Amino acid sequence: MSEPEMRPKAEKLDATDELAGVRAQFVLDDTVYLDGNSLGALPRSVPGRVEDVVRRQWGSLRIRSWDESGWWTAPERIGDRIAPLVGAAPGQIVVGDSTSVNVFKAVVGAVRLANGGPEGPGDGEGHAGRPGPGGRDEVLVDATTFPTDGYIAASAARLTGCTLRPVTPDEVPDALSERTAAVLLNHVDYLTGRLHDLPSLTSAIHAAGAVSVWDLCHSAGALPVGLDEHGVDLAVGCTYKYLNGGPGSPAYLYVRRDLQPRFDSPLPGWNSHADPFGMTPDYTPAPGALRGRVGTPDILSMLALEAALEVWDDVSIDSVRTKSLALTDFFLECVQAYVPEGAVESVTPTAHPERGSQVALRCPDAGNVMRRLIDRGVIGDFREPDVLRFGFTPLYVGFGDVERAARVLGEMF
Amino acid sequence: MSEPEMRPKAEKLDATDELAGVRAQFVLDDTVYLDGNSLGALPRSVPGRVEDVVRRQWGSLRIRSWDESGWWTAPERIGDRIAPLVGAAPGQIVVGDSTSVNVFKAVVGAVRLANGGPEGPGDGEGHAGRPGPGGRDEVLVDATTFPTDGYIAASAARLTGCTLRPVTPDEVPDALSERTAAVLLNHVDYLTGRLHDLPSLTSAIHAAGAVSVWDLCHSAGALPVGLDEHGVDLAVGCTYKYLNGGPGSPAYLYVRRDLQPRFDSPLPGWNSHADPFGMTPDYTPAPGALRGRVGTPDILSMLALEAALEVWDDVSIDSVRTKSLALTDFFLECVQAYVPEGAVESVTPTAHPERGSQVALRCPDAGNVMRRLIDRGVIGDFREPDVLRFGFTPLYVGFGDVERAARVLGEMF
Repeated sequence: MSEPEMRPKAEKLDATDELAGVRAQFVLDDTVYLDGNSLGALPRSVPGRVEDVVRRQWGSLRIRSWDESGWWTAPERIGDRIAPLVGAAPGQIVVGDSTSVNVFKAVVGAVRLANGGPEGPGDGEGHAGRPGPGGRDEVLVDATTFPTDGYIAASAARLTGCTLRPVTPDEVPDALSERTAAVLLNHVDYLTGRLHDLPSLTSAIHAAGAVSVWDLCHSAGALPVGLDEHGVDLAVGCTYKYLNGGPGSPAYLYVRRDLQPRFDSPLPGWNSHADPFGMTPDYTPAPGALRGRVGTPDILSMLALEAALEVWDDVSIDSVRTKSLALTDFFLECVQAYVPEGAVESVTPTAHPERGSQVALRCPDAGNVMRRLIDRGVIGDFREPDVLRFGFTPLYVGFGDVERAARVLGEMF
Repeated sequence: MSEPEMRPKAEKLDATDELAGVRAQFVLDDTVYLDGNSLGALPRSVPGRVEDVVRRQWGSLRIRSWDESGWWTAPERIGDRIAPLVGAAPGQIVVGDSTSVNVFKAVVGAVRLANGGPEGPGDGEGHAGRPGPGGRDEVLVDATTFPTDGYIAASAARLTGCTLRPVTPDEVPDALSERTAAVLLNHVDYLTGRLHDLPSLTSAIHAAGAVSVWDLCHSAGALPVGLDEHGVDLAVGCTYKYLNGGPGSPAYLYVRRDLQPRFDSPLPGWNSHADPFGMTPDYTPAPGALRGRVGTPDILSMLALEAALEVWDDVSIDSVRTKSLALTDFFLECVQAYVPEGAVESVTPTAHPERGSQVALRCPDAGNVMRRLIDRGVIGDFREPDVLRFGFTPLYVGFGDVERAARVLGEMF
C-alpha cells in the first residue's frame, strides 16, 4: 500500500476512535509524540493543581496541610486511584519511592514470605531474615529485564542469603524448583514490547510454592493487568509512563490483601508504623497496604500524579487496550507500506496476546535514524544497541500520528 | 523582666539583625511560624520555578529535558549546592529518596566498609554482604533517635547479620568495641534540640575502627556541620526543614570522597551505574558520589528544592548560627519573663555548644496548650508525651516574633 491508501484509512480510524476526545486533556504540539512509554505527556489538570499545592497548601497552610490538604494519606489514596487500572481492589497499593526501591521491598518481602514470615503484625523482628538450611534460597529474575530490576534483585538476594538466577520468562516454568523463593518478572519487556503471560506464569510460580513479583512499568495504563484476578502476590510499577505522572513521579507497591499481615518490609520507615506519631522505639507495622510505606511522602510529585490520574475518570482500561492494539497494528501496517523492504525488522510480537503498547524496530545506525526522526518531529527513542522504540499512548496518540510517523520513517532510507 | 522591657529589646535586636532582609524572600503571614524545623516556609523563588518545570520543561520539552533542562544530573548538582552548608567539598553528596531510604543505604554501606568492602569499583558482588566470624557485627544506634532511624537501622543490622544496640550518644564512647561496625547518631535531637558533639564522637568511633553515620535532619541549614573537617564517614539529611525544600522534598547522602570507591550500596539502582544507558545486565557502580543514586530522580520536588536553595547565595551558615543562638537565647529569656515560674520546663540545653536551633518545653497538657497557641497565631508543634517544640529558622524568624511567641505562651497559664 502507498500513501494515498494509508491516509484515508488513518482518517477513518480517527473518525471512529472513541478515545479521540481524551487528547484534548493533554498539552501537545505539532510533533508526533511516541515516547509516552518513557515520559507521558503533561495532562492539562496538572499545572493548576501543582500551583495550588505550592502556593496555598505549602505557602499558606504549611504544616496544617499534612491533615487539612490530605498530604499524610496521599500514598494510599492515590494507590487506590491506580488500583482499578491494574485490576486491584482498594487497600492493596501504596504510592511512594522509586521503582527500584519498590523492587527491593518486593523481592526481599517475597523471599521472606516464601520462607514463612511472621504470622501477624508486631513480630517482624528477627524472623526469616534469611532462609535456614533447607529453605528456599533462589531468586529467579527475568534475564532480559530492564537492568535496574536485575541489579536490585541481586542486592536483595545477596542480603537474604539467596542465589540469583537470571532466566528468560519462557524458561521460568522449567527453572522453578523447591529452592525457588521469589520470581521477578516484567509484564511487558522494555526493549521489545513483548507482553508476557502473567496468568500462566503466576500459576506456575504458585504451583512451585514460590512468590511472584511483577514489574508493571510498561503495562500499567496501557492494558488490563488483572492483579487480583490472577492471584499475583506482589507488584511494582512506575507512574511516569502510561500514567502520565511527570518526570520521576513516585512508583507504587501492590501487596495482595491476604499476604499483607505477613509482609515484612526491609525498609520499615516510620510512615509504615501502626502509630507513626507515637514515636516509639519499637517497630509495629501498620495493617494493610500502609506497611509498604517508608519515609515522608514526596508531596509535590505525588499530588501532580493525583491530578494526572483524573483523566482516567471517564476512560476504561479495556477501551485503552482496544485502541492500543489498533494503533500498533496500524503502525506495523504503515511501516510495511512506507519503509523499504528489509530496512527495519520488528522485534515486537505480531500476536496480540504477546504485544504491549510499543513497537520496537531494529535497524542499522539506529541512533542516527532516531535523531533524524526527532528532527522531523517524530519523537521516539533509541535503545542500545540497534533499537528504535515507538510507544503508543492511546489517550493522546491518533491514527493520523501513526501514519505520519511511519511515513517519515520511510523517508529515512 | 516584663513586657515593657522585652519589646524594646526585640526591636533593638531586629534593628541590628544582619539577616533581617532575607525574610522578604519567603512567603509569610501574620502568624509567628516556629515550625520550620518540621516544614520550612515557602521561598518566593519556588512557585515560578515549579511552574516552568511543569509547563515548559515537562509540557513542551518532555523527554528532551532529561538533557536540555539538566534533569539527569540534578541529584549531584543539587548535592553540590547543599555541600557548602554542611562543610563538604563538591562531589560527595547526592540528593534523592527519603531520609529513611538514605539511612538504609548508609548503615548497610557502613557495615560493609567496617568489614572491608571491595577494593574498587566493579567488584561489588558477593563481598562483605555479611560479616564473617570475627568480623564487626554490632551496630550502635542513638537510643533517643527520631524513630525511623532506629527502625531502619534494625533492618540494616538484621540484613547484614549484625546486632543492633541502642545507646545514648553519651554512652557511645564506652559502648564502642572491636565488634562495632557502624554508629548511627543524630547531630541534633529531634525532641530536645540537643546538639551532640560530632567532632569528638566521630573521633571516638574512628579510634575504635568503626564507621560513623550522622543524621543531619535537624542541623543542616541551622548550624555549621563540618563534615569534611571532622572526618565524618557517611551522613544523611532531609531538605524540608531548615533547607525549605517543600513537603517531602528529597533527602541526601554524603559519602566521604576517600570511601567512595569502597562504598557498596544495598540499593544499586540503574542511576548509580557507571553507564546507565548501556543497559548491561552486570552492575558496575559509577565513580564518586553518584553511586549513592538509586532510581529515576523525582524531578518536580528536586527542582523545587534547587530553587529553594537560592536563598543561600548571599547567606553564610556562620551568620545563621550566630542569629540562631541569639534567637533561642532571647526566647528562653522571654519565657522566663512572661511564663509563670514552674509552668514550663526547658529540656533544651542552655550551653551553646549543646543547643541546636529549637527550644523544647515540657508542660502538662502540652497537646492542648499547643492547639491554643496555634489558635493565637503562634505555630509550633506538639510531640508525645508532653513537649512543645519551637523551631527558629534564622532566615525568616525575627526577634519580634520571638517576643510575641513567649508573650502568648505566658497567657496560656
